[in-house]
Amino acid sequence: MKRHLLSAADLSRTDAELVLETAAEMLALADRPIKKLPALRGRTVVNLFFEDSTRTRISFEAAAKRLSADVINFAAKGSSISKGESLKDTALTLEAMGADAVVIRHGASGAPHRLAHSGWVHSSVVNAGDGTHEHPTQALLDAFTMWRHLGNLDGRRVAIVGDVLHSRVARSNALLLQTLGAEVTLVSPPTLVPVGVEAWGVETSYDLDAVLPKADVVMMLRVQRERMQGGFFPTPREYSRRYGLDARRMATLQDHTIVMHPGPMVRGMEITADVADSDRSVIVEQVTNGVAVRMAVLYLLLSSDSQEDTSL
Amino acid sequence: MKRHLLSAADLSRTDAELVLETAAEMLALADRPIKKLPALRGRTVVNLFFEDSTRTRISFEAAAKRLSADVINFAAKGSSISKGESLKDTALTLEAMGADAVVIRHGASGAPHRLAHSGWVHSSVVNAGDGTHEHPTQALLDAFTMWRHLGNLDGRRVAIVGDVLHSRVARSNALLLQTLGAEVTLVSPPTLVPVGVEAWGVETSYDLDAVLPKADVVMMLRVQRERMQGGFFPTPREYSRRYGLDARRMATLQDHTIVMHPGPMVRGMEITADVADSDRSVIVEQVTNGVAVRMAVLYLLLSSDSQEDTSL
Amino acid sequence: MKRHLLSAADLSRTDAELVLETAAEMLALADRPIKKLPALRGRTVVNLFFEDSTRTRISFEAAAKRLSADVINFAAKGSSISKGESLKDTALTLEAMGADAVVIRHGASGAPHRLAHSGWVHSSVVNAGDGTHEHPTQALLDAFTMWRHLGNLDGRRVAIVGDVLHSRVARSNALLLQTLGAEVTLVSPPTLVPVGVEAWGVETSYDLDAVLPKADVVMMLRVQRERMQGGFFPTPREYSRRYGLDARRMATLQDHTIVMHPGPMVRGMEITADVADSDRSVIVEQVTNGVAVRMAVLYLLLSSDSQEDTSL
Repeated sequence: MKRHLLSAADLSRTDAELVLETAAEMLALADRPIKKLPALRGRTVVNLFFEDSTRTRISFEAAAKRLSADVINFAAKGSSISKGESLKDTALTLEAMGADAVVIRHGASGAPHRLAHSGWVHSSVVNAGDGTHEHPTQALLDAFTMWRHLGNLDGRRVAIVGDVLHSRVARSNALLLQTLGAEVTLVSPPTLVPVGVEAWGVETSYDLDAVLPKADVVMMLRVQRERMQGGFFPTPREYSRRYGLDARRMATLQDHTIVMHPGPMVRGMEITADVADSDRSVIVEQVTNGVAVRMAVLYLLLSSDSQEDTSL
Repeated sequence: MKRHLLSAADLSRTDAELVLETAAEMLALADRPIKKLPALRGRTVVNLFFEDSTRTRISFEAAAKRLSADVINFAAKGSSISKGESLKDTALTLEAMGADAVVIRHGASGAPHRLAHSGWVHSSVVNAGDGTHEHPTQALLDAFTMWRHLGNLDGRRVAIVGDVLHSRVARSNALLLQTLGAEVTLVSPPTLVPVGVEAWGVETSYDLDAVLPKADVVMMLRVQRERMQGGFFPTPREYSRRYGLDARRMATLQDHTIVMHPGPMVRGMEITADVADSDRSVIVEQVTNGVAVRMAVLYLLLSSDSQEDTSL
Repeated sequence: MKRHLLSAADLSRTDAELVLETAAEMLALADRPIKKLPALRGRTVVNLFFEDSTRTRISFEAAAKRLSADVINFAAKGSSISKGESLKDTALTLEAMGADAVVIRHGASGAPHRLAHSGWVHSSVVNAGDGTHEHPTQALLDAFTMWRHLGNLDGRRVAIVGDVLHSRVARSNALLLQTLGAEVTLVSPPTLVPVGVEAWGVETSYDLDAVLPKADVVMMLRVQRERMQGGFFPTPREYSRRYGLDARRMATLQDHTIVMHPGPMVRGMEITADVADSDRSVIVEQVTNGVAVRMAVLYLLLSSDSQEDTSL
């Protein structure tokens, strides 16, 4: 694997499969009484979060600690950022303090790339979500979850449903799932389709009911109500009626089809409670798999053994 | 012990004494150069705090770290809770991330019970204070402190003084101390007596001066000024005059009587500085004992050896 | 060394040199695959921060963790401080919880001294910045950085430039550098010279261009714009023109002269980007050295071996 994980597009199929296989080994850890590996003892992982995201931060924190790394949380709000410090100086500071990996969440699309490609830092940079751009570890954990349920993803049909426009999850999944051989259909209201989606290589649809019966995976996206203001967007009620997953729609799915959601869910909006809690739902597994996948990513980026193999 | 610690009422006398004896062993640790035990290595304790409480959070954090557990702090403010996530989904998330224990502080009475009894999680739930309801580890550390000073609590008289209405500390202490054989008297202004206090099995009084000479323990409660607004409550000055502990009142205590306070104190309001700093005051010991008791609770709930014994 | 580190003035030349030599050993750690020492295993370091300072907090946190200490972060904002708890009670609480060292950042000058000399606590107190008073570990890391570049500091000329009035960095450096034999010149606008600076034993100047050619070290201070309001202070533009370090001024320095800044920088204000990124700039090294110096300080204050030697 390369030194950074910035975009799902950077992962070759071989890279991605290496992460999935390593994650499977990490997941096996969870059944043992002592869930820690000494692999990253003495390494420091910094969680550099410019946006609140307790869920993702904790997932990386748990992953790093199970590998025995030291974790330092840096919530950029109220920090020296507000004294006028640039991203560059923050990066130089973290590097100089001995960070081996910087896990960055930033409101601006591209911030992790700037951090990694500027030459400012030698540590590994992991994109934990940048603007409306990408969230590659989310895509990896989603792919891992599908892989454990469906096996090889070649030819599998994945429907990603909802506010695609604002979703870094949708973009990273669309990229990674195609690398792994799956066929992706984005289902969203016309006003929530990103410009230039033709270049993603996916199919698009406005008609959820037409897509569901053919899907092997249905991935519901969180409705980002805070971004949906003004007359161009459907009302919550209208959204729910046309793009929400409820028991009636769930009944049209194939028997083996699984339902996913990256969380946090707005129950009753994009997904009803009975669907979220049904046997088809793998939403809780996604969280467990998130820790395993992040362990795999940190291990592959930081452990001495894996670094000797520079071909990845 | 059961899998959770939700209420002081759940503890049998045998349970409670097991915690106290284990806490005594944990306290002995503090005299050694290396204060750590490997007992919970590889276990993860999540501090899930929906209300600010640095003091309680740090006490649990120190306790868990001395047992070599990994600690993850989750301040629910500004987290995905504010994106519309329910307590249920937060719980499922923490569980799926591998939390072995969830220490929860919540503004709503009963939230820890909902978490524990919903079937959402398999991890142990520890109530670190819920609304005006309970705070069982505070009661355990208070009982532990009394036990170290007075020995067996059978027949000992404990006066709990102040804003009983809003105090989860008072309620948990009233329950636990009676389990341990003590006689509890609640002393408070008439407007700060909880409805239904008759069912607690304790005595009540409005007259501090009458109660003090008979008490073996005087436990002053913090005045929660933020909750005392409107004409039904005494003014601070009136409160202090009638229910504050000062040197004059302290002089009426028996020689062996100890003075306690759960902290943080409002010096000059419910307790004067000279009383707080006097030889009778065990307020600082309560803090030390708090870490020992929380170590005992986490150890009894989480360690493999103790879990084999399911009779507790 | 004494039990506390409160002021650069408390350090004898022997003390200061012991810290620098120990820091050099700590820095050597950074080249090894596992950067951890077991020296402080089982010890607890509390970061007690009444002011935001992510940079300093992280530096102490990284230092303590590399020595295998447990770290507890206590951001005093929103804590029980706001419930009316005094510094005294906070200190007693931390002590009782088993803190071996309290690293304190406080907005009030003298707060760390009160904490250390009140008799409240037995743990070591480290001043991480108090009001406009002192920041001794910053001075130690600055001296360490100079020492590695220039060797012995006897007779070396250090220019400290900018808002001396509000700078605890300037004061601690002025004290320590003179202890180590250097000659210090403070360069600042007339309105930003502290009252009583004559007693510091340093030279003062308003003329940066006259001072630069003789300096071995140029230390630029951060412009604290939030404190510079009202007619007595120069405008940003005027400040920059008269006291900013740019390429033209840098060209007047001697070949061996180094440029320092405690961070966070306001690029374009007190220092231009090209100067900050030039070969003369040791700003990033200062950060690395900060972790090493703080490791040295914590080690000397807390490790059993060093505590046996009470002569320091």
